[in-house]
Amino acid sequence: MTEAASATPVGSLSEEAVLAVILDRLGPADALVGPGDDAAVLRLADARVVVTTDTLIHGPDFRLAWSSGRDLGAKAAAVNLADVAAMGARPVALFVALAMPPETSIAFVGDLATGLREACDELAPGCRVAGGDLTSSDTLTIAVTAVGELAPGRDAVLRSGARPGDVVAICGDVGLAAAGLDILFERFRDERGAAVPVDTDALTASERAAVAGQLRPRPPISSGPAAARAGATAMMDVSDGLVRDARRLASASGVTIDLDRTTLGADSERALRGGEDHALLATFPEGTILPEGFRVIGSTREAGPDPLTVDGRAERSAGGWDPYRDWDGAAG
Amino acid sequence: MTEAASATPVGSLSEEAVLAVILDRLGPADALVGPGDDAAVLRLADARVVVTTDTLIHGPDFRLAWSSGRDLGAKAAAVNLADVAAMGARPVALFVALAMPPETSIAFVGDLATGLREACDELAPGCRVAGGDLTSSDTLTIAVTAVGELAPGRDAVLRSGARPGDVVAICGDVGLAAAGLDILFERFRDERGAAVPVDTDALTASERAAVAGQLRPRPPISSGPAAARAGATAMMDVSDGLVRDARRLASASGVTIDLDRTTLGADSERALRGGEDHALLATFPEGTILPEGFRVIGSTREAGPDPLTVDGRAERSAGGWDPYRDWDGAAG
Repeated sequence: MTEAASATPVGSLSEEAVLAVILDRLGPADALVGPGDDAAVLRLADARVVVTTDTLIHGPDFRLAWSSGRDLGAKAAAVNLADVAAMGARPVALFVALAMPPETSIAFVGDLATGLREACDELAPGCRVAGGDLTSSDTLTIAVTAVGELAPGRDAVLRSGARPGDVVAICGDVGLAAAGLDILFERFRDERGAAVPVDTDALTASERAAVAGQLRPRPPISSGPAAARAGATAMMDVSDGLVRDARRLASASGVTIDLDRTTLGADSERALRGGEDHALLATFPEGTILPEGFRVIGSTREAGPDPLTVDGRAERSAGGWDPYRDWDGAAG
Repeated sequence: MTEAASATPVGSLSEEAVLAVILDRLGPADALVGPGDDAAVLRLADARVVVTTDTLIHGPDFRLAWSSGRDLGAKAAAVNLADVAAMGARPVALFVALAMPPETSIAFVGDLATGLREACDELAPGCRVAGGDLTSSDTLTIAVTAVGELAPGRDAVLRSGARPGDVVAICGDVGLAAAGLDILFERFRDERGAAVPVDTDALTASERAAVAGQLRPRPPISSGPAAARAGATAMMDVSDGLVRDARRLASASGVTIDLDRTTLGADSERALRGGEDHALLATFPEGTILPEGFRVIGSTREAGPDPLTVDGRAERSAGGWDPYRDWDGAAG
């Protein structure tokens, strides 16, 4: 694409022309039937299919001053890949419903497709976009559905399987994305509160890592199936903060989880309350040799009066991000 | 729900409370793992899965003055079920990503879930919503992904399989939804062009049927697998008008399709150009005993200079609805 052509708004192009740019960036899917028919057909490891869907919305979920098209495509892929991995499954394909204002540039759309592909190639090799839908909307919306397969003979790892006496372990970043969001809100908004582009030169290396963790999280997708093979009794991805999500896992399993704050690093407050890293939280029978990347952060016991404690004290706060409660209505 | 409670905006409720209303209306899904974990797990007839996604957006796809929540839920289900059926597959589950303005009433959300369930129960018994995602957006958006299964040993029916000498047949309404849209645009807008509620008492029975065909289409879902069993060589659902979609099928198959206008009823113009009925267009080897509901509307031959003729004349017009080209920007 020439520079002039890349600024072309999608509203001035045919659906076929927009689709051609997207398909060119996505590359071929490993499917029996790929994009171009009424539906895709995928071959799985056996007759069970794992399916999840998660949406990014301009405003509550991202600001275009902060996120590039590539960041958004990669994040939309990553958050869905993490939900598949959290079942102990291997992601095999993504389906992307993309709704865009007519003024969106074709270059942005191409970048978004590039980001989707990059996240698949990096985090879940073999998984690609196998279908989707394009439509016009006043609000840029990226709805992704991820499809995964389970190893034959192995059940999905649910939230409800933890037993008293298990170890609680985590794999991936916790609190990094929240630190990044704080940096964005504190340092990259103008006097009216509107988002302004990130000046990476003004950031230290660790601040850059935090901002990248927010804009383009890299959850440990292959560690989901590895945890299943190692015998994980329960697993989920941490999208709403460790406190909220550990409490959910404990409640679903009918146990109490005791977390040890000293295992959560220097910024244990953010690690406990920040969401959006999509780390994998899992429980294993005591004595399990944990898969690479998992570290012990606590243990489970028979359900007490509170489903979650931190350093022995009941933890009842919310934490995490709720789009209904927390979105201030701004987009940018 | 009391009348007062039903007017409650979702923005004043927790995500859990909104979800509880939705799940109550949806009823249980026939899944190994249903809603409530990171992903759903479904058991299929064999190791192949059919997946498609299609989105309804407030503005280009519907007006709230015309469509009830039940209509929208039912339509969002129907258009996706039709894409699965058009592969010759049986729909087994829907996944619904729902993005709503905070002021949306909880009653509307409950009605939308009821419509999703009603369409599944009526059109594709055994199929239910098995998962989804709730988020906040300035634009009401219903992104549905449908999952289907193929009969073991039977391939998906593609657009590309028609051979010269096949009969071309259709099952379901063609032109009805377009007639309904014309009635809505001509008679149920105010002097400024804004949509106003439909007064069904002002309509004849056939006008009511047309409006219902637009607001709540009923594609013949079970006829998709029936066509596959009968030996359909190619199939697709007619969402963009018969002219456009027949031309796509002909081009994908490398044949020319000759349609006979006298088979298309009294309003053959609307039947040729109107979209959104989601009828099933299929080709069969000559001499096939067609499944119930299919009627012959033409035949195929070796590819000529034009992929489509009507009564022997090349048909090169567009027809159908293009959200980028045709949406006037209004919502209502």
